[in-house]
Amino acid sequence: MTVAGEAARIAAPDEAVSLDELRLAARNHGMPLEALRYDVTPPGLHYLLVHYDIPFIDPASWQLRVGGHVRSPLVLDLAALRARPAVSRTVTLECAGNGRARLVPRPVSQPWLDEAVGTARWTGTSLAPLLREAGVLDGAVDVAFTGHDHGTERGVEQDYQRALSLPDALSEDVLLAYEMNGAPLPPQHGAPVRLIVPGWYGMAHVKWLREITVSDAPFTGFQNAVAYRLRQSADSPGGGEPVTRIQPRALVIPPGFPDFMTRRRVLDAGQVTLSGRAWSGRAPLTAVSLSTDGGASWTTATLGPATERHAWHSWTATWQAAPGEYELCARATDAEGDQPVDPPWNMQGMANNMVQRVPVTVR
Amino acid sequence: MTVAGEAARIAAPDEAVSLDELRLAARNHGMPLEALRYDVTPPGLHYLLVHYDIPFIDPASWQLRVGGHVRSPLVLDLAALRARPAVSRTVTLECAGNGRARLVPRPVSQPWLDEAVGTARWTGTSLAPLLREAGVLDGAVDVAFTGHDHGTERGVEQDYQRALSLPDALSEDVLLAYEMNGAPLPPQHGAPVRLIVPGWYGMAHVKWLREITVSDAPFTGFQNAVAYRLRQSADSPGGGEPVTRIQPRALVIPPGFPDFMTRRRVLDAGQVTLSGRAWSGRAPLTAVSLSTDGGASWTTATLGPATERHAWHSWTATWQAAPGEYELCARATDAEGDQPVDPPWNMQGMANNMVQRVPVTVR
Repeated sequence: MTVAGEAARIAAPDEAVSLDELRLAARNHGMPLEALRYDVTPPGLHYLLVHYDIPFIDPASWQLRVGGHVRSPLVLDLAALRARPAVSRTVTLECAGNGRARLVPRPVSQPWLDEAVGTARWTGTSLAPLLREAGVLDGAVDVAFTGHDHGTERGVEQDYQRALSLPDALSEDVLLAYEMNGAPLPPQHGAPVRLIVPGWYGMAHVKWLREITVSDAPFTGFQNAVAYRLRQSADSPGGGEPVTRIQPRALVIPPGFPDFMTRRRVLDAGQVTLSGRAWSGRAPLTAVSLSTDGGASWTTATLGPATERHAWHSWTATWQAAPGEYELCARATDAEGDQPVDPPWNMQGMANNMVQRVPVTVR
Repeated sequence: MTVAGEAARIAAPDEAVSLDELRLAARNHGMPLEALRYDVTPPGLHYLLVHYDIPFIDPASWQLRVGGHVRSPLVLDLAALRARPAVSRTVTLECAGNGRARLVPRPVSQPWLDEAVGTARWTGTSLAPLLREAGVLDGAVDVAFTGHDHGTERGVEQDYQRALSLPDALSEDVLLAYEMNGAPLPPQHGAPVRLIVPGWYGMAHVKWLREITVSDAPFTGFQNAVAYRLRQSADSPGGGEPVTRIQPRALVIPPGFPDFMTRRRVLDAGQVTLSGRAWSGRAPLTAVSLSTDGGASWTTATLGPATERHAWHSWTATWQAAPGEYELCARATDAEGDQPVDPPWNMQGMANNMVQRVPVTVR
C-alpha cells in the first residue's frame, strides 16, 4: 500500500490558535499537571488523543484477527485473549505531539502544551507468544496493527493503522491490553483491546484493535510513512526520521495556587518542596535538574526509586523561595544525554521535549 | 462579604483564541459528542471544568462543617456521611459557559464549543435533613458551600464558594454526593464529597466540599455576585440576572466519520438514523426538532422515554440522506418554550444554548 497525504500546515509566525485546533483541544485533553503527584494516573486524568471518533464495540462480539505472512492465521475473541497468561505493566504514555503548540512557528494539529502524558497500569497478554503461535514465515519484516477507528487525515481515508518492525513487535514488553488500572479499558482508551508498546510515543499503542497483519514488505501506511515523521522540510530525505521512542522529559508540579484565566502561580515565601515526574523511553533515566531562573542555572533534584523501566520516576527538590518573580524549569537526563532546553523544530511538531516553563510569583 | 472583581474581557471581533484560553482547554475537556450514545457517561468522558487546581484531600481525615446561622453546628466525617440514608440520582450536568467560544464577540474564558456536558449517576445523602438537624434559625436566607479549591479570579483570591437560597438548598433534590457511577468520586469530580443540585448549571455543584454556612444576610461572594451573571454590559442593573437552571438544549451525534483536523463529517448516502440527547433543567422536556438545512426547516424527532427528571432524554430521527452538503441542527423544546437558534449574547458567555451546527458531506 502506498499513500499520499498533504503536508501538515504551519501557522504563520503571528497566527493565533484556530477554531480547528480549539475543536481538537475541547475533545482531547492533557493531564492537569497537579496529577503528576500520582504514581498511577486516576482514570479520566490520563491524557487522551483520539484521531477520529471513539468507536463503540460490543466486547461480546469483538474479534481479533492475526494474519498475513504467517503459517496459521488466528481469530481470537475476548475470552480467548483473557484465557492466555496475564501480564501487568505500569507504563508512562506521552503523545508524540506533546508541546507542539509551544513551537514557533506552530505546526497546525492537536495543540498540546506540556500535558499530553499519563501513567497507567495495563493488564493484558504478551503479543510475542501469539505471533509465534501464528507462525511468522521467513521473510516477514513488519507487523501492522489496525484499529476500528475510521476517518480521513490530510486527504487519506483510513482505519487508524500503525506498524512495528518484526523485532520490535516480538519484544517481550509488548502487550495486548484489556484492562487499565484494574478495570476493563474505558471506551476512549481503546476498549475492548489495545496495543501497549512500552517506551514508545502514544501513536504506536493502537486502540480498538481489530487486526494484526504480518507483512513481507515494509509497511508504508499513512501513520508510519507520512504522519509520525521528523521532517525539517517538505522534501526531507525519505520523508524524515520515524517517530519511535519517548525522548527524556521532566515536569514540575506547578506550586502555590493559580489564577483562573492565566494559570499564573502565586506562592507564599518560605521553604518549598518542589516535586514532579521524569521519564524517558529512549534510555534509563539518570538525573533530574531544576532551575528557578528560567534555565540560567540548574541544581540537581533527588530522583525517586526506579519502579518499572517504562514508568515515570518521582523527583523532589527543596527551594528557599524568597519574594520575587521566578521561572521554574525541570530537565531530565537519561543514559543517552540531557533533555534539550530548546530542541530542533520539525514540521509536524513531533517528539518535542523542550523544557517546561512555569512562571511563579513568590509573595 | 463584599467582593470586587474585574469584568471578563471580550475578544475583539477578529481576535483568535489566545494562549490563555488554549491552556484552559488543554486542562478541562468536553464530552466527545459520540459519547451522547450512553445513558450514563463513562468515567473520563464526562465534561470537566476545574476553576483552580484539583485539590488532593485524604478521605480519612476529611471533615465537613455545617454552621453559621444554625442552632447546632455539625462536623461530619466521611463515615458519618456514608452512614446516613443513601440516595442515587442520574443527573445531566452542563457547564454554564458551554458554547461560549461560538459567541461573537467572544468572552475570554474557558473556550467551550458544544461539548461541556455529561450525565452521571450520583450517590450520596440528602442535604435537607442535615440542615434540619443543624437547626436553621429564623431569618436565614442563604446557604453557602465552600470547596477546598483555592485560586484567584479577576483579582479576587478565594476558595471556590457558591450559595443557594435557603428554599433551593432545602429542595429534596439536593445531594451531598460521595459516589459517581458506583465508585468513589474521582479527584477531578470533587473527591471525597461534592454538592449535586439537579437541574442547575455546573457552577452550583460545589466540589471538594469542606463547609456549609447558613447566613442571615444575602450571600455576595464572587461566584454568585460577579462571575455567574447574565450581563449585557458592565453596568447591567444589579450586576445582571444570576445564572441558575440549565436552559433547554439538544445535541445530535455527528454521523458518518470525521476528518482529523477539521472534524468535518463524511456520510454514505442512504437511510440514516440520527440520534442524540436533549435536556432542560428549567422545565420538563417536551419535544426535539431536527433540521438538515441549517435551521431553514425542521422536523419532529422521536423522543425517548423520560428516565429521571434531570437526566437527558434520548431522541432519534430518520433521514434519507442524498449526496450533497448539509448542516444538521437539533433543537429542544421544554414546557416553557423552544431552544433559541441564536440566544441573546451576554458578557460572560453564560447559559448560551444556541443550536449546534454539524456540517456533513453525504457522498
